[in-house]
Amino acid sequence: MSVRRVFLDSSGRSPITSRTAQAFQAGLADGWADPARLTAESRKARAILDGATEAIADALGAHPAHVHFTMGSHVAFDRSLAGVAKARRGRSTIVAGAIERQAVLESARHASDTLVRVDVDRDGHLLLDDFAQAVSHPDVSVAAVQHGNHEIGTVQRLDALADAAAAAAVPLVVDASATIGHTEAPERWDVLVADPADWGAPLGLGVIAMRPRTRWLAAWPGEGFSPGGVSIPLALAAAVALQERLENLEDTRTRLTALTDRMRQVLAQLEGVTVVGDPHERLPHLITAAFMYLDGEPLVSSLDRAGFAVGSGSACGSDTFEPSQVLAAMGALTHGNLRIGLTPDVREEDIERFLVTLPRVMEDVRRSMTA
Amino acid sequence: MSVRRVFLDSSGRSPITSRTAQAFQAGLADGWADPARLTAESRKARAILDGATEAIADALGAHPAHVHFTMGSHVAFDRSLAGVAKARRGRSTIVAGAIERQAVLESARHASDTLVRVDVDRDGHLLLDDFAQAVSHPDVSVAAVQHGNHEIGTVQRLDALADAAAAAAVPLVVDASATIGHTEAPERWDVLVADPADWGAPLGLGVIAMRPRTRWLAAWPGEGFSPGGVSIPLALAAAVALQERLENLEDTRTRLTALTDRMRQVLAQLEGVTVVGDPHERLPHLITAAFMYLDGEPLVSSLDRAGFAVGSGSACGSDTFEPSQVLAAMGALTHGNLRIGLTPDVREEDIERFLVTLPRVMEDVRRSMTA
Repeated sequence: MSVRRVFLDSSGRSPITSRTAQAFQAGLADGWADPARLTAESRKARAILDGATEAIADALGAHPAHVHFTMGSHVAFDRSLAGVAKARRGRSTIVAGAIERQAVLESARHASDTLVRVDVDRDGHLLLDDFAQAVSHPDVSVAAVQHGNHEIGTVQRLDALADAAAAAAVPLVVDASATIGHTEAPERWDVLVADPADWGAPLGLGVIAMRPRTRWLAAWPGEGFSPGGVSIPLALAAAVALQERLENLEDTRTRLTALTDRMRQVLAQLEGVTVVGDPHERLPHLITAAFMYLDGEPLVSSLDRAGFAVGSGSACGSDTFEPSQVLAAMGALTHGNLRIGLTPDVREEDIERFLVTLPRVMEDVRRSMTA
Repeated sequence: MSVRRVFLDSSGRSPITSRTAQAFQAGLADGWADPARLTAESRKARAILDGATEAIADALGAHPAHVHFTMGSHVAFDRSLAGVAKARRGRSTIVAGAIERQAVLESARHASDTLVRVDVDRDGHLLLDDFAQAVSHPDVSVAAVQHGNHEIGTVQRLDALADAAAAAAVPLVVDASATIGHTEAPERWDVLVADPADWGAPLGLGVIAMRPRTRWLAAWPGEGFSPGGVSIPLALAAAVALQERLENLEDTRTRLTALTDRMRQVLAQLEGVTVVGDPHERLPHLITAAFMYLDGEPLVSSLDRAGFAVGSGSACGSDTFEPSQVLAAMGALTHGNLRIGLTPDVREEDIERFLVTLPRVMEDVRRSMTA
C-alpha cells in the first residue's frame, strides 16, 4: 500500500496549483514580448503586465504606479533598502528587527555603515521602547521590520512600530514576504516587500510597493528597480495565485489555524520540545518547534523517509543546518528545530498521521544518536 | 483575407517554442522545491537543476561547477563585473568596448571609478591596438568585450583581444548574450555571460560561466551569484531551448545568413539607407539599418500596422527612441534606425513581403513628416 506523501514545508516555495500554472502558460503565450516597444506583440505584453500589476497593487492596498517588480524577493529587499537609504543622504544607520530574514539583515548591512538590531520578547515581538529609541537617532536612514515571521509565525504589532517610525520621520520598510496570501495585508508601511513565491507563484518575482510620498534613488546600475525587465508570465501567475489565495482566505485561515493549534498542543507535550512564537498573534500556517536533545537534520531526513516533507534551520534554503538565526536571536535554548509550513490543501488526516509519526521518529533519532 | 503576422524583432525576447514551454511546465511540476533542502521534493528539484546546469555548461564549453545562474542577464553583467573587479583589489578601472550593451556599460561604471571605452572601426570591430594599450594600464581590474553585437551583429575578433588581455593578466569578461544559440560559443574568455531569453527561453535567467582559475568576490548582499535561488523551471527551459537551437544550428545559420544577405543587399539600395556592421564577420540573424532622413518611431509603427514587428533604437527595451547608442558610438550618421532580428522559423516569403513593404512604408512616413 502506498502512503500519500505529505508536504509540510511551505515557505517561499510550494507546489503550483493548476490554475496558476495555466496562468503562467497563458502569459508565456501572449506576454513574451518586451512591453516597452511599439509593436502589437509588445502592447499585448504590456496589457498583461498592467493588469497583473493592478491586481497585485489592489490586494496590497497600493497604487499600481508605485508597485515595482524585481526578479525575486532577495533583490527586492536589497533594492528597496538600498534605494530608500540612498535617498536619505547623510544618514548611515539602518534599524531592523533581530529576527528579520537573513536577506533583510544582509541587505541592511550592505546598504548602511551601521545596522542596529532591535531585540524581541520571548514570543518574538519587537521591543517597542527599544525600537522607538533606535529610530529616533538622527543618523537612521530607514527601519525594516517584518509583518509576520517566516519561521515562528509571530505577527508584529505594526501600528505601534509605524507610529514610532513616523514620529521619527524614518521610512518604514515592512517585510510582508511571509504573510501576503495567508492573512490580511498590513496597512502601516512606507515600503512593502512581498514574495509571490510564498503565496503560490513560481519563483522569480519580487514585489516592492511604495507610498507615493516615499523617496528612493537607484543604488545599482540601470534605471528602475529591475533594469532589463521582469517576467510578465510570472507577474500574471503571481496575480492569479494571489487571487486564488484571497478568494479562500477566511476559510483557509480558519482551517489552518485550527490545525496548527492542534499541532502546537500535541508538540508542546512531547519531551524536550518547545513550540516557539506567539500562540495567538501569529500566522495560520507556520510552526517552529525547538528540540532540546535532537538534531534537525536526522529529524528532517527520517520524516522524509516516513513520507513527510518538513523544514529545519533557516527557512531560507540553508543546507548547512546551522541553528536557526531566528531562534538564536530569541535566545531560545535549542539543539535542533523543525519548521512546519502548511499549504491550503493540507488534510486533517495528514496532520493526525504526522502527529502519530513524529514521536516514533524522535525515538528512532534519539536511539541512533546514542548508539 | 488576413495576412500572416511576421515577427522580425528577436532580441533577447522571442516567442517560446512548444518544446520549451513544455520543458518549463515539467520543471514547474517537479522543480518547484528548494534544491538546498533534504526532502524528496528538494532532491528532485536539485536533479533537474544539476541536469540543466550540465547541459548549458557543456554547450558553453564550461565546467558545471563554474556555471552560475542569476535571475536575468542584466544582473549577470552587474555581478560578474562587480565580482571579478572586487577580487582584483586596488585596481579601479574597467575597460570595455564602445558598443557594448547599456547593461554592460552601466554595470562597469557602477563597479569601477573609471570606465575606459575602446573605440571601434567602421564595421564595429574594437581597435586592437587601443584595446591592448588600455588593458596594459596597471589600474585595470577587468576588461569587458562582446562576442557579437546585439544590434549590428558584428562578431569581434576575440582571439586577438583575449591575447592582449592575457598578456596584461587582466580577466576578460565576454558578453555572449547575443550569440549563444545563433553561432558557436566563443572559446577565449575568463568569464562568459549569456542570456537564455535570447536563445528562446522565457525571460528571467542569466548565465555566468567562469574559468576555474577566475577569482571573484560577492559585491552584493548574500552568498553566491543569486542568493535566494533561481527558477529551476527556467533553468530547465533554458537548457531545452538551447538544445533545440544547437540541434539545428548549421541549417538555421545557413538559411538565416542567406536571408540577411539578401536583406542587406536590398536595404542598401534604398535611398538614404545604410546597413551597418561587418557584412561577413557577423551574426546570421541580425541587421541594423540607419535611415538618413526618417525617424525610427513612425517606421516601426507603420511596419507594425502593415503586419511586421521590428525594433528601433537600443535593443534593450528603450521606449524613448533615442538614437541607438551603438550607432552613436560608431559615429554613424543616422536619423532613425531599424533593428531586425530573425527567429529560426522565419519564412523566405515573409522576408520578400517585408522587402516589398518597407519602401512603401518609408514613402508614407516621408510624406507624413513633410505634411
